[in-house]
Parts: sequence; C-alpha cells; structure tokens
Amino acid sequence: MTSRHGSRPTMNDVAAAAGVGLKTVSRVVNGESGVSPAMAARVNAAIAELGFRRNDSARLLRTGRTASIALLLEDIADPFSSALTRAVEDVAAAEGCLVFTGSSGEHPLRERELALAFCARRVDGLVVVPAGDDHSYLLPETASGTPVVFLDRPATGIAADAILSDNAGGARAGVSHLIRHGHRRIGFVGDLPQIHTSAERLRGYREAMAAAGLPVDERWIACGPTDRARVGEALTRLTTGPEPVTALFTANNRITVAALHQLPRPGERPALLGFDDLELADLLTPALTVVAQDPAALGTAAARTLFERLAGDRTPPRRIVIPTRLIARGSAESPPPARR
Amino acid sequence: MTSRHGSRPTMNDVAAAAGVGLKTVSRVVNGESGVSPAMAARVNAAIAELGFRRNDSARLLRTGRTASIALLLEDIADPFSSALTRAVEDVAAAEGCLVFTGSSGEHPLRERELALAFCARRVDGLVVVPAGDDHSYLLPETASGTPVVFLDRPATGIAADAILSDNAGGARAGVSHLIRHGHRRIGFVGDLPQIHTSAERLRGYREAMAAAGLPVDERWIACGPTDRARVGEALTRLTTGPEPVTALFTANNRITVAALHQLPRPGERPALLGFDDLELADLLTPALTVVAQDPAALGTAAARTLFERLAGDRTPPRRIVIPTRLIARGSAESPPPARR
Repeated sequence: MTSRHGSRPTMNDVAAAAGVGLKTVSRVVNGESGVSPAMAARVNAAIAELGFRRNDSARLLRTGRTASIALLLEDIADPFSSALTRAVEDVAAAEGCLVFTGSSGEHPLRERELALAFCARRVDGLVVVPAGDDHSYLLPETASGTPVVFLDRPATGIAADAILSDNAGGARAGVSHLIRHGHRRIGFVGDLPQIHTSAERLRGYREAMAAAGLPVDERWIACGPTDRARVGEALTRLTTGPEPVTALFTANNRITVAALHQLPRPGERPALLGFDDLELADLLTPALTVVAQDPAALGTAAARTLFERLAGDRTPPRRIVIPTRLIARGSAESPPPARR
Repeated sequence: MTSRHGSRPTMNDVAAAAGVGLKTVSRVVNGESGVSPAMAARVNAAIAELGFRRNDSARLLRTGRTASIALLLEDIADPFSSALTRAVEDVAAAEGCLVFTGSSGEHPLRERELALAFCARRVDGLVVVPAGDDHSYLLPETASGTPVVFLDRPATGIAADAILSDNAGGARAGVSHLIRHGHRRIGFVGDLPQIHTSAERLRGYREAMAAAGLPVDERWIACGPTDRARVGEALTRLTTGPEPVTALFTANNRITVAALHQLPRPGERPALLGFDDLELADLLTPALTVVAQDPAALGTAAARTLFERLAGDRTPPRRIVIPTRLIARGSAESPPPARR
C-alpha cells in the first residue's frame, strides 16, 4: 500500500509509464470522454502501478480558492432542507464547486461550531439556515472576504444577504382563505416564537384577522416545539371546551404532520390548512390544503447570490423574498358547524 | 477589507491584543464554552480588528488528514437519501469530521466525476451510493489509503465494504404477505433491472412465488424508469385486459407514489404493497402496507465502517445487511375479487 506521505508520482510519470500523451492521462484522471476503452485501461494500469492520485489542493491554493462551499441546515433529513440542498448542489455543480452540508439541529452553539469549522476549512462561501440569533461571530469571516448568505431566516448582528419565503404573505393568504369559508375562530399552531419564520407567519395570521375585522383571542395561539406531544396538547386545548376553534392553521410541515396524526377523523375535526406542502397531501381524505413554499427556488436564489458575491459583487446586502402559493384541496374549505 | 493572501495574524496576536491567555482565544475561536460574555466580546473585538481567522488546513496537512469525508448519493432531495445523510453526518460529527455531499442523479459519469473530485480534494474517505456498474476507477484511491464504503448497492470491479438492505428478503416477505391474503396473480413494478436493489427485489418476488408453488407470468413484471408516465403505462397494462393482476408490489418509494397517484380509487384497484415507507403512508385510506427500509441504520453502519477503516481496520471487505420490516396497514390485506 502506497503511503500518503511519500514522494508522489505526477501525471507526467503516468504518461511516460503508459506511453501516452499528458492530455490523455488528464482526460482519464478527470473522467472526461474522448479516450478509447483500451487506452483508458492502459492509463489506469499505469495509475494503479504508480499509485498516482490527482490532487486539486495545490492548484486551488494558488488561486486562493478551495472550490467548495458549505450549506448549514436545520436538519438535512427534513424534506424542506433536502430540497434546498439539491438546488444549492445543482448551482454549485455548474460552478465546478463541491458542497459541504451540516445540520445544526436548531442549536445555536452547533450552528456556530459548524460554521466556524467550515470557515476554518477555508470554504469559499457559506449558505446558512440560522438556528441562533447572533451571527456577529461571522464578522471576521465576512471581513476576510468569505461571503455568507442567509437562507430561510435573516441574520442578526451582521449585514448579509437573506433569501426568505414570503412567510407573512403566505400565512395571510392561508388565514384569509379560512375566513372566506366562514371561519371566525381560527387556531394558530406554530413553532417557537423566537424563530423568524414562526414570528412572520404569526404576523400574517394577525394581519389577516385584522383585515377581516375579526378579534383574536390569545388562547387561539399556541407556539412551541414541534414534537407530537406538544402539538397534541395544543390541539386538545384549541379544539375542546365551550368555544373550540372551527379551523386550524398549522404553521409548518412538522406541525401539520403531527396534527394529521392526532386530530379526530375528518368530519369530526376543524378545517385544516398547513404551511408547507407534503408529498402525499393530495392523496389524503380530504386532500390537504396548504400554503406551499418553493424550496428549490429558495436554494437556487441563495446559491446564485453566493456565487455573485464570489464573482465580486459588492453591492449592499440584498433581501430576496420568494412567493408562496395557496393550494386549495379540500381540508380547509368546509364551513364551520352551523350552531357554534 | 483584509486580503485572503496577506500575512495572517495568529492566535497569539489576538491574545496579546485582547490581553487574555491563548487558551481563552482558542475557546472563543472554536466555539467552546467556559468564556464569560464580556471576555468573549473582548476576544471577538480583537479578532475583528486584526482580521484573524482560524485555519485548520495547516494542522490537517501535518496529520495527513483533512477531517472530511464525502457522501455520494443518487439524489439528496429523495427522503431515503436525506435520511441516510443525516445518519452519516451524525457519526461524522462525533468523529470531528465534516461531510461533503453530492448527487449523481443516477448517472455513472457524474458519479465518477464527483467521486474523483472528492478524492482530489483529499477527503479521508468516501461513502458511495453507486450509480455506475464499474468502480475500478477508484482502485488508485483505495490503493493510496482512501477507504470507500458502498451503500445501498455493492461495488463492481473493486473489493470494498458494502452496506445493504435485505432487498430480496424484504420483497419475499411482502409478496408472501400478498399470497397469504389469497393473491395469485401479483404484479411487480420495479426500477431499471440493472440496478442492484431492483434486481434483488425482483429475485425476492420470484422466490416468494416459487415457495408458494405459484407460476409467474412474465407479463406481470414491469421494470423501467420510475417516472410517472412509465409507471402509469405499466399499471394500465397490468390491471386491465382479460386477466388483470389482483395485487401489486411496487418496488420503491418513487414507484409507489406514482402508483398511488394513478391507480383507480380504493375499492376499484388491486391490493397494493410498497417497498419503502412514506411519511403519510399511515394516513392514506386505506393506509399503505409497506416493506420499510431503515435508512438511518444503513447510514450509521456505512459511516461507522468507514471510520473503522480510517482507524486502521485492514480486515477483508465486509457486507452488512440491514433487515427490512413489513408494516401491515390495510392496502394489501383485501382478498382478490371472488370471480377472477
């Protein structure tokens, strides 16, 4: 087994051993087409014999770039996050750039550790779905020329680009839809109130109610963690008692899934409208009405912004807001019970 | 703005400027606890003033490691892939290692380009969900000491660790379940037949039929791309005509979703059993019976194997098979129509 530390053979050594030109070796090494199978086999035999391995590090060091970016997510296993990731990956691939990913698990300290670890590995830029509420720790990085683009939620304590969904507008459209179908007592089940998206969606809820001249009973608002137990308790509180809500706005995909599992059967439960689309939402009975985000558009806009910064764009930080879309499918369109 | 190329300030410079010890600077720089907010602010001010940035590259070069691994997937936006990724990420994080991810889109050339690009960036190891059927291009990498673990599908042309689901056993269990509920004419809708998982699941189907003494009409088997149009055509062919199948085994998550969207309403369609669980499968009417894989266990086993190799394990390549689980929920348990 060849040592990782010995004197390394070069592409010229491989070309000489295989009796071919340097360009042919380069094509094989870089997985390019235009080399016959027989020729490729000769080159690969020489590569294996000499233990040659391509090394981009030296070339990249000369350019001052590592041709890598990092994407910091809440949880890559969440469908919203993984759709973002694919979009970022596709833009990066077109730029010849590799992508580190990492999940903060919504922990500010883990976000910071990961972000600084990526920077210490000299990524060219960062896309961050922030968990924390103080990003001034990134000031030395941005001052040194590493652009950071915030995705899904804006930064705090640092001037940076932010690519966001129209959270307030989407929630407003959803709640207005429930109001149009006759609902007056509408429950809001949201994420932790300090999370930007959660606060914005709650703002949209309040604005829609106010625009319709409807009072909001603060007991209709239940914000907290998205685990099933907490959501279940909130649902029980909102849907029972002398004046239950007649409709529910569940403010993200985790909460909607938890609600779908815990609400009574359709016909015995309030009208339901979720923020975020779900893969089988259209196959439920009734099909689920949602305010859909566009994670692919979010990821694409974030990655494009990052590469524009890397290409030298020094204009002031921008905020790009990606529209949401109301998809009416049946779960939110039943009127409230006549006698309540 | 500080240049990326100028003479870089060190942690000692920061400690001197802030009037604190080197250990305190190190704690702040690495996001560790145990520093008071006031002290951290002083250190951060010195960091910002001097433009200090931590750099792991030099330390890592000395160790011969980059403390990074790469995970090559079919499509990170697929829920199966993103669950794998989170598991690999968690193991890597515990090892102080960062993770590159990349999607091959099931293209062998893209797999090769990405794998070689990760190796050229000197990742310490690779976890690969292979798209291609010749991985001898990785021989120079493994010979140079970069371990490669194959996940979901085994390698070809190279001796390497493989972490696989029990695809044949899972399919056998699923098809046997349909047979137990009285089905004799069972359709198999699978992915491209050259894909290992597809071939293995088809083998499980044939074994279950043979074990029950049932003949297989080759017209019941429809393998091909997983897009809706192809799946829709296959379903039409299998479920119409003088002798339609009375049950369907859909052999992966993409195919099951396509089938759910295109089959007639429950009651007018065959019994349905899918390979791979889906997030809302239990909320459909009827709820979907599946053979569930365990992507978290697959990702964890792959990452652990990789780190064992990195720690010096030189035992022969291993094959780890992760069990699947039959979850009966209703869609597969109706008997065939009496008169067919």
